[in-house]
Amino acid sequence: MKNLKQILDISYPIIQAPMLGVSTPAMVAAVANAGGLGCLPLGGLSPEKTLDLIRETKSKTHRPFAVNLFAHSLAAKVSVDDIEKMENYLETLHKGYNLPFERKPISSYRFYNHLDQIGILLDEQVPVVSFTFGVPDADVTLKLKQKGIKVIGTATSIKEATILDKAGMDAIVAQGIEAGGHRGGFLEDESLPQVGLLSLVPQIVDAVKVPVIAAGGIFDQRTIKAVFALGAAGAQLGSYFIAAEESAASEVYKESILNSTDISTELTRAFTGKWARGVRNSFMKELKNSGLTIPYYTYQNSLTSALRDFGKSAGIADIISLWAGQSASRSKRGSTEALFGELINQIKSGPNPLF
Amino acid sequence: MKNLKQILDISYPIIQAPMLGVSTPAMVAAVANAGGLGCLPLGGLSPEKTLDLIRETKSKTHRPFAVNLFAHSLAAKVSVDDIEKMENYLETLHKGYNLPFERKPISSYRFYNHLDQIGILLDEQVPVVSFTFGVPDADVTLKLKQKGIKVIGTATSIKEATILDKAGMDAIVAQGIEAGGHRGGFLEDESLPQVGLLSLVPQIVDAVKVPVIAAGGIFDQRTIKAVFALGAAGAQLGSYFIAAEESAASEVYKESILNSTDISTELTRAFTGKWARGVRNSFMKELKNSGLTIPYYTYQNSLTSALRDFGKSAGIADIISLWAGQSASRSKRGSTEALFGELINQIKSGPNPLF
Repeated sequence: MKNLKQILDISYPIIQAPMLGVSTPAMVAAVANAGGLGCLPLGGLSPEKTLDLIRETKSKTHRPFAVNLFAHSLAAKVSVDDIEKMENYLETLHKGYNLPFERKPISSYRFYNHLDQIGILLDEQVPVVSFTFGVPDADVTLKLKQKGIKVIGTATSIKEATILDKAGMDAIVAQGIEAGGHRGGFLEDESLPQVGLLSLVPQIVDAVKVPVIAAGGIFDQRTIKAVFALGAAGAQLGSYFIAAEESAASEVYKESILNSTDISTELTRAFTGKWARGVRNSFMKELKNSGLTIPYYTYQNSLTSALRDFGKSAGIADIISLWAGQSASRSKRGSTEALFGELINQIKSGPNPLF
Repeated sequence: MKNLKQILDISYPIIQAPMLGVSTPAMVAAVANAGGLGCLPLGGLSPEKTLDLIRETKSKTHRPFAVNLFAHSLAAKVSVDDIEKMENYLETLHKGYNLPFERKPISSYRFYNHLDQIGILLDEQVPVVSFTFGVPDADVTLKLKQKGIKVIGTATSIKEATILDKAGMDAIVAQGIEAGGHRGGFLEDESLPQVGLLSLVPQIVDAVKVPVIAAGGIFDQRTIKAVFALGAAGAQLGSYFIAAEESAASEVYKESILNSTDISTELTRAFTGKWARGVRNSFMKELKNSGLTIPYYTYQNSLTSALRDFGKSAGIADIISLWAGQSASRSKRGSTEALFGELINQIKSGPNPLF
């Protein structure tokens, strides 16, 4: 079996996680140029935006990089009553900030699926495509593989990993409960999978044939060595890069994660309708206590977007999503190149270097 | 600084977790005789029972072992209304099994505190005392240390670990969210700490002066090596020993964990009033959906004890607590000596043996 570095044509099996609103073409290219795998987040973006971001990344690096897509479908049905109650709640919140609140008919909600984007990825010969929130259809996977494009899936449980393995993924990301941002899985048998990385990785490694990439809580040579000891073939870091110079995170977001602790974050559906880990703030707390039913993604995501945009530009941490993992406080300021280089230096200078 | 093996006078830094209703004197002695640290669970037991179990353990080993106590106080107040509603709920459940339900006045609830047990531990010169659910008073810690008894605390967050470090603990158990059974911490600032072990261990190691023992999800040489890579000085395993011959777990409990998966467990307050991780069953699900407020420990623990005793003797998995961690399916049948020996053999025969 080829190892992960050979499969992905990279020098170090260190991957920068795709973070919408954080990871930029400049960040992705910096990681690629340093010998790792940068991942460009494209989930839910329009075909035009998809093409622009890929071209911008290509203009900054000649090394392989990955793009990330959402492999899910829209929630089949949504309660008009739930949406209206959420609109009423948000309208009141908007008023407190003198921010207008626009109601739009449900039929006008627009969501781009990965099927809208695949043609562009094939045309552009993107080296690696990673998927979250589901399993790509067999013909999508086939088309990508026929072009020599490597395909990565995301699992939060053993069962999801075995499904992705059978679907022909070239590698599987095992996302532990430590991870910041959205839970990348797609099955909720009895409840949302919330497995710690230490338990998840070895059990997935034993259950699948392909290399496993560990994600969640990784921030230094100790945590990287630990996931390799667990049997992982690669380590994916997200929060570690949030405060980087190339990050699109707002200053207030960067400050909030640098000031966080191991218990500052929790899982919430408040911002997007999908479970995600972020630093606890007023919006999360108040919505939890409101008793309101939160509409599923992408409805809630659309409903809160004006508030989040305003919060981001006005620097109000209480109304923006502060996605972060349980080790997020260990992220650092600096260039992406310097942050990536520090990881490699730590590993090379420590005892029993991994690579 | 002395290392953990020197501090605890053991040959291998592998610790068997104290599990009430599972860990017996025979199990503790088997681990001690094999060179690890066995932990005898004594939390909440009467002074008489405390003495009996210590003497029984001593009759089976001359090696050091630990006892575990609860360092908390009873919930300050309880709602009579909540208790009555829970009694009504449980009475109906009992009727379904033709089991009588006895109501007793709140004033009759009896709970033994660690202060009722410390005198015995001092008299018996128990080698090591570990605490969960709190920080022992300064004079308790002083008395134990003056007798040469080593003291271990349990943390589920960095903040708890620093408090235990300042209180003079000789070592600190870092309990990750993967762990089965009760959450051993004592602070809930905004919500219950639920930190994954991979994120928790290195952050606690960086925050305290004493050796850190990692607990949660550990089941083989990979997971042991991983926690040492994270900076831990020892590994504590609980679920791994549940199906052992010396375990007091019922057959139906053993079967349920051997048949579990990474997502079979969840946190519940249903059985005892304190948060604990166990294999999901009807009692947990129904109580969650009942809308009832669960009285705090030890009230709920007393209220459900007759039902659990009946379930244990009748072999009904749906009404007993099936405490288990996220790797519990990897536990094995066999003697405690053989299970412990397999861990040591795995580590010694693998690449880069730890010890």
